[in-house]
Amino acid sequence: MFELNPVLGRDSILVGHFSLCQLRLINDAQFPWFILVPQRNDITEIYQLVEEDRQQLMAESCLLAETLHDAFSATKLNVAAIGNQVPQLHIHHIVRYKTDPCWPSPIWGKLDAIPYSKEDLAEILQKVHSLLSDDLTLPSDGAELYY
Amino acid sequence: MFELNPVLGRDSILVGHFSLCQLRLINDAQFPWFILVPQRNDITEIYQLVEEDRQQLMAESCLLAETLHDAFSATKLNVAAIGNQVPQLHIHHIVRYKTDPCWPSPIWGKLDAIPYSKEDLAEILQKVHSLLSDDLTLPSDGAELYY
Repeated sequence: MFELNPVLGRDSILVGHFSLCQLRLINDAQFPWFILVPQRNDITEIYQLVEEDRQQLMAESCLLAETLHDAFSATKLNVAAIGNQVPQLHIHHIVRYKTDPCWPSPIWGKLDAIPYSKEDLAEILQKVHSLLSDDLTLPSDGAELYY
Repeated sequence: MFELNPVLGRDSILVGHFSLCQLRLINDAQFPWFILVPQRNDITEIYQLVEEDRQQLMAESCLLAETLHDAFSATKLNVAAIGNQVPQLHIHHIVRYKTDPCWPSPIWGKLDAIPYSKEDLAEILQKVHSLLSDDLTLPSDGAELYY
């Protein structure tokens, strides 16, 4: 049974499941900021994944990145596995704009998070569910509760 | 013919070539900090690579990350495609330690680079060449000039 790191659980909202990864939204309305969390225990680095999981991660990451880039009209995607503070492997996918409050710096550790309003959270979840409906399984407890 | 972004060329030293990527060392002696640069023009995001290149990038990235993690006794690898300032796709692979000057923050934009001394540059290049000799083609102009 996969166990999510509690800090990741606290800071993010489950959007749905790909075949390998949980897709989660970081609860910071300043950036469209998602993480992919491979549902494998005791993994801290991408290279620790078995070959099949590596390929699946690449596929899910590319699908997510291209979808976000196009749907959010990103200037740039920032895709990163850092994990200095939360070692459980999670790969950031952050939509960046030339007009965002940290551009062109990376965003980690720069600004305190501003949680989504109920309306804005519903809007972004609905948008992402719609975009990824072919590949994403929605949370069984009903993400529709959000919107 | 692949054209390297001149800023990447200025800030880093060619270590050698994998099948897809140039392996380059960022000239900052404060961190063992490497970049993989896929030798494809006009690519800014991983998802823009064709399927075969995506898989090759994953293989080269995992080989490099595992090799660095073990040989440098890393606390953590930081693996990231950012590109806000230099859009040509390049994937950072940074060896992090609990004792390094930025831990646990990401390192980008934090400290001015401290270039390697001639001796330290020779040492790290020789070490990486030795570790990756099965998979890395050395620069044709003779990286041995460094050591």
